[in-house]
Amino acid sequence: MSPHALSHRHHVVIIGSGFGGLFAAKQLRKADVDITLVSRINHHLFQPLLYQVATGILSEGEIAPPTRDVLRRQRNVKVLLGEVSGIDVSGRSVTSSAAGITTVTNYDSLIVAAGADTSYFGHPEYAKVAPGLKGIDDAMELRARIFGAFEAAELEPDPAKRAEWMSFVVVGGGATGVEMAGQLSEVARRTLKGNFRVIDPADARITLIDASNLVLGSFGYRLSQKTAEQLIKLGVEVWLNARVDDVDETGVHVIDDHGHPAHIASRCVVWAAGVQASPLGKLLGEQTGAAVDRAGRVAVGDDLTLPGHPEVYVVGDMMTWRGQNPGVAQVAIQSGRYAADQIVRRLNRREARGPFHYFDKGSMATISRFHAVASIGKVRLFGFLAWLIWLVIHIFYLVGFKNRITTVFHWAISFLGDSRAQRAGVLQGANQSATFEPPPVT
Amino acid sequence: MSPHALSHRHHVVIIGSGFGGLFAAKQLRKADVDITLVSRINHHLFQPLLYQVATGILSEGEIAPPTRDVLRRQRNVKVLLGEVSGIDVSGRSVTSSAAGITTVTNYDSLIVAAGADTSYFGHPEYAKVAPGLKGIDDAMELRARIFGAFEAAELEPDPAKRAEWMSFVVVGGGATGVEMAGQLSEVARRTLKGNFRVIDPADARITLIDASNLVLGSFGYRLSQKTAEQLIKLGVEVWLNARVDDVDETGVHVIDDHGHPAHIASRCVVWAAGVQASPLGKLLGEQTGAAVDRAGRVAVGDDLTLPGHPEVYVVGDMMTWRGQNPGVAQVAIQSGRYAADQIVRRLNRREARGPFHYFDKGSMATISRFHAVASIGKVRLFGFLAWLIWLVIHIFYLVGFKNRITTVFHWAISFLGDSRAQRAGVLQGANQSATFEPPPVT
Repeated sequence: MSPHALSHRHHVVIIGSGFGGLFAAKQLRKADVDITLVSRINHHLFQPLLYQVATGILSEGEIAPPTRDVLRRQRNVKVLLGEVSGIDVSGRSVTSSAAGITTVTNYDSLIVAAGADTSYFGHPEYAKVAPGLKGIDDAMELRARIFGAFEAAELEPDPAKRAEWMSFVVVGGGATGVEMAGQLSEVARRTLKGNFRVIDPADARITLIDASNLVLGSFGYRLSQKTAEQLIKLGVEVWLNARVDDVDETGVHVIDDHGHPAHIASRCVVWAAGVQASPLGKLLGEQTGAAVDRAGRVAVGDDLTLPGHPEVYVVGDMMTWRGQNPGVAQVAIQSGRYAADQIVRRLNRREARGPFHYFDKGSMATISRFHAVASIGKVRLFGFLAWLIWLVIHIFYLVGFKNRITTVFHWAISFLGDSRAQRAGVLQGANQSATFEPPPVT
Repeated sequence: MSPHALSHRHHVVIIGSGFGGLFAAKQLRKADVDITLVSRINHHLFQPLLYQVATGILSEGEIAPPTRDVLRRQRNVKVLLGEVSGIDVSGRSVTSSAAGITTVTNYDSLIVAAGADTSYFGHPEYAKVAPGLKGIDDAMELRARIFGAFEAAELEPDPAKRAEWMSFVVVGGGATGVEMAGQLSEVARRTLKGNFRVIDPADARITLIDASNLVLGSFGYRLSQKTAEQLIKLGVEVWLNARVDDVDETGVHVIDDHGHPAHIASRCVVWAAGVQASPLGKLLGEQTGAAVDRAGRVAVGDDLTLPGHPEVYVVGDMMTWRGQNPGVAQVAIQSGRYAADQIVRRLNRREARGPFHYFDKGSMATISRFHAVASIGKVRLFGFLAWLIWLVIHIFYLVGFKNRITTVFHWAISFLGDSRAQRAGVLQGANQSATFEPPPVT
């Protein structure tokens, strides 16, 4: 029995605590509805800064406030920890479980905002050697691998093997890949300066691979060129038109732009190449006949609902809408809010808001400290000014979170100084949390 | 071959990056020696604040700066990541390994400062259900269990089972146990206030168990009584003269002060009851004939060396010296510095400093915000004044660390407000780092 079975209020269930889910819930704060937000994580993740957790600038708590703490004053929301295993669209219920407890929650309206995870394009075996960067656990894993690789290099007496430990490969030249490559360079050239006695961390080899002929292709040709130039200045090798053939413990096998096979030896590979929408997308497609693409995204109507189910919304990274799927935070926020508004309008028997429109506020990516690229409307910015805008916007967007002040402080330490606070790891710890063990030597 | 084999300088090897090892290394900063510091963790842990990481106030990086970063400007130190598996006292070498690489390091002088780990008094099976609080990994594990237990309670429809999730048991009434019990009360009554819709976190049951008739026994009768009173005021059940008979997934089985068996149902048990010195102690005892007690501590001479081996020092939690083993940070710091000084004196053919003397600067423990106990010389303090002194001293001792400012900030947020920054967890994450899964339901 749903905890809301006795309630006469309209019950909205939201799946996911990311940008789509959280902003939908907040949009409903004054609505005469009961809301249940179900999520498999206990926090709202500010994903655009996840790479800073992976590279030791920020702590996980600074970008991941507990969802129930963010929403504690919104009395019409109940937050439920749980992995959703089933949605019954005709019976209007959601089944979730956590800690061995299974909960069935009935709904009147449903907003599915379960987001996307890393896609290895049919090669799940890559996951073990090349973590993605979608969740806090990914970031903690990468942090241990990155700093662990330098530790192993310092220990390794064989120069060839040492070079393998000091080789880092980032697969995928989108914003996440570019930001990771830039940060790896900063870690090697600045953060670790003077820390070692055998190796010089600045000798680290950082390679960014992309299958297309551009990095940050979505930012346009000029910014793409500028980004590649800046990365090269930072000592990053940029391999374009390079197709990944295989990833294993020895590194990455690629087919280069001349069609020749090449091998980049590395013990630390970051996978920033693809995303796969939550499997709930496929489940919804099967029940409603909505089209689901290869990346698992559900084709929604102009109003973000499923065919024949005006009470079911799919938003954010999980949706394809008018053939588009930008997969950015702004789309998730705006689509989540739109769905919430539509629910209230239907409830109040008011006219629908009309089809969903995405207002593109622009996109930006940091390459290194003091260098960013920004594409805002028709304006293209590069360098320090873009970086300043990036800084202000990110501080502004963090405003909802308690930790913005310490975050700004950690940025000051990291950008103006040369240190990073978050590098603690444990070798072969008694348990699995925060264990700091470089990947095994083959 | 040791990397220092060609060097003609006296080579000091230090095992451990805790208070003993780090302060020994720092004390040698101007000495004409080469130093290798070997540690299985990459950081120096400020252990007195570990309970604040476990309960979500501080991030792990704030109390665990990388050892090699702390020592980066001290050019005579090399930091080596590695678990020490062997010490050859006659051959004067230390064998360590990490990342599958084994390193043998020769020494002229050796300082063994490998510290202590949790002891389950012959019941290693307790470890799985009742983590200790000795390392960063322990703190991260406990953090996930504590906040996970409240999540599970919110989900659990059965009131009896819900009460089990909301029952927390701390075994051991020393400083760590008292601080954990006090913080658990603050988490339940303040931090989580308003966060849940089904449970009231303030209903949590927190039990502190000790086998003796006092909590904080080493602080003297009056402070002990005051501490117990304050804990009871915070809603903590204090069970004294209670002997732990068994710990399993259902909770703790005790023999109470009347000799009757009792069972405290709980899904989250913290073990703060005992310590066991590093197994390296036993290894040294076997080779040198030094006495090793049941807790693995090595009996050292007045000058902290081993019988027949004036070049081998054992310091901190690993030593028993004149029958004493206070096991506190100050002893580790002072004994580490003493050993370093002695090495320099012997090297310069100067007189030894005389036997080691421990200058007791006093001890303190926080019970909750604004309440602490302090025993300094003959002065006994309790309450707000003790807490202020605690605050000032801890800020002062953190001065060596980059993060003292953010730490003070997180304290302000947590002491003056009601929030804790570090609660992020992942349910059934793809990998093991930072995984947030409450212990399984039986």
